[in-house]
Amino acid sequence: MAKSHVTIKEVALTAGVSYQTVSKVINHQIQVTKETEKRIWDAVNALGYKPSYTARSLRSQRSYTIGYSWPPTPDGQTNSILDTFLQNMFLAAEAHGYYLLSFPYHDNTQKHLDTYSEMIDTGRVDGFVMSSIEYNDPRVLLLLERNFPFVTFGRSNPNLSFSWIDVDGGEGFRQETNHIISQGHYKIGVLAWPEDSRVGNNRISGYFSVMEQNGIQVNPEWIRRGQGCFDFGYQATLELLELPEDIRPTALITMNDMMAVGAIQAVKNRGLIIGKEFAIGGFDDFPMAQYIDPPLTTIRQPIVEVGQQIIDLLVAKINCEEPCEPQTVMLEPELIIRRSTLRQ
Amino acid sequence: MAKSHVTIKEVALTAGVSYQTVSKVINHQIQVTKETEKRIWDAVNALGYKPSYTARSLRSQRSYTIGYSWPPTPDGQTNSILDTFLQNMFLAAEAHGYYLLSFPYHDNTQKHLDTYSEMIDTGRVDGFVMSSIEYNDPRVLLLLERNFPFVTFGRSNPNLSFSWIDVDGGEGFRQETNHIISQGHYKIGVLAWPEDSRVGNNRISGYFSVMEQNGIQVNPEWIRRGQGCFDFGYQATLELLELPEDIRPTALITMNDMMAVGAIQAVKNRGLIIGKEFAIGGFDDFPMAQYIDPPLTTIRQPIVEVGQQIIDLLVAKINCEEPCEPQTVMLEPELIIRRSTLRQ
Repeated sequence: MAKSHVTIKEVALTAGVSYQTVSKVINHQIQVTKETEKRIWDAVNALGYKPSYTARSLRSQRSYTIGYSWPPTPDGQTNSILDTFLQNMFLAAEAHGYYLLSFPYHDNTQKHLDTYSEMIDTGRVDGFVMSSIEYNDPRVLLLLERNFPFVTFGRSNPNLSFSWIDVDGGEGFRQETNHIISQGHYKIGVLAWPEDSRVGNNRISGYFSVMEQNGIQVNPEWIRRGQGCFDFGYQATLELLELPEDIRPTALITMNDMMAVGAIQAVKNRGLIIGKEFAIGGFDDFPMAQYIDPPLTTIRQPIVEVGQQIIDLLVAKINCEEPCEPQTVMLEPELIIRRSTLRQ
Repeated sequence: MAKSHVTIKEVALTAGVSYQTVSKVINHQIQVTKETEKRIWDAVNALGYKPSYTARSLRSQRSYTIGYSWPPTPDGQTNSILDTFLQNMFLAAEAHGYYLLSFPYHDNTQKHLDTYSEMIDTGRVDGFVMSSIEYNDPRVLLLLERNFPFVTFGRSNPNLSFSWIDVDGGEGFRQETNHIISQGHYKIGVLAWPEDSRVGNNRISGYFSVMEQNGIQVNPEWIRRGQGCFDFGYQATLELLELPEDIRPTALITMNDMMAVGAIQAVKNRGLIIGKEFAIGGFDDFPMAQYIDPPLTTIRQPIVEVGQQIIDLLVAKINCEEPCEPQTVMLEPELIIRRSTLRQ
């Protein structure tokens, strides 16, 4: 316990200088002779002096803290990228002298925004990371209005100018659709997010573009929208399998792996062989994807890179002297081909 | 941006009192007439004055921050309780005026401990939550020595006295073993953590006690120890199925659900029907447990309660005047019976 009570005056006494000199040298506010500087740092190290975080923070007007809040995973769903995303942000932040402060995600938008305002007003954080970004996202609009540093994982409206990093979900769907067409399918269904989902619309645009390039007219019946859970995947797939034979899909792409698991169950229950008779591709590559029967073709996002780079972008933003241009980074996902989409 | 620049002097001017009076009333350091108090708070609200977090922190010598670091999920494994645990801690902490600060978990023990020391020395946090607690856990020993507030999810050595909350894993294994015996099995294997695992030893003690109560002598060959992944579950189960018929298990309990998925695959590959011919029970009730074939009997931990109560215990500890006795809370898990252990 003693170490934390060493004062700056004791350091000054040991180094034989005034405490103002110690303070200024430690905070890089003046230059002194090399000899004096060495005496001060030797005394700091010998006594184990550590400047109080709050005192340092008050001097620098920095909290060295990044705020992050994310929506809880709904029951029965998985957030398979959460731990990787968090841990890589923690490491990148630490390398910049920062830590992450987490706070609850309130469904009540005004209450949630109030937390952001309070964190800004009280100097709790120097910037925010945000994810699950939607069109006209109220958090984005608030932070733009407050001119407060933030970087998002995911884009919003194209006309809003701010720093973001994203994985090209449209490219993921392009790769998956091309792969499924290469297996001889053309009636390809999609289990998608609701129409107001920015992430969902990015992804499905890749499907539409590849279908058009291949001269396949998409039947609106093939697109089913709902939640990313087993039950929706199961029910929506049963409905697709009940369509008249001439328009009934023989393949399916889903917006997450849990929906794909439900789809696989529905197709099996109808007596079809997955892969050979019906192709199913997911999205996320959750840990179970390789172990289900058959193993699931899916899209893997480079989450390690997203976690590292989002912090690098944010710290650059915090340190940037105005005016500084928004930075944007688009990363490519990877198609992981397994048996669920292979004819043989 | 204007709001954050309102000063205490402006509040004093509007309220018609000295700024010292405003400061003391806001910080509950003096009592004034109700009328004066109302004038001050009206001015605070009208001007949108917010005391700086760092200034408040410096006065109170509190950071209103709780530190938490946890080991990253290994590749191919899932941490199905992480998001629920975190989100419920965030909510409970917010209710006490606290937020959670996260930092990386370094495999290098000394480096990891240095982070704890730095957080204490610099006043970054008022206390710690810790999980994945082992025997002679160096983090526990450090914080006991520093006499710094912490509460753990999980116990350590019985002779170390500190506040913890835990789920009775031994009780979970007792329930699961009893259930499997009730289905007519007595040669029951266990896929367990390594022998130095505190969590693993708590769980397996429940198996040993029920086996003994039922007069079943445990064959040491039935216990296989390794990592909580699919591959270990698969390989260890193949080995169990190759034992001579008189000692070959007809049932299996695993320490997490991912091992159980590997075990199910191995048993299927040997042509046995899960449930009818071979029982498999897991631990965790991860979201996929109900959707695998057959649905998995498993143990569910009350993670919402753990997340809430661990914060309540810690804040009580932070606010406690010395000496204060360590508090311990043991919660019961729940056996979820599905088809993987049912004869019919």
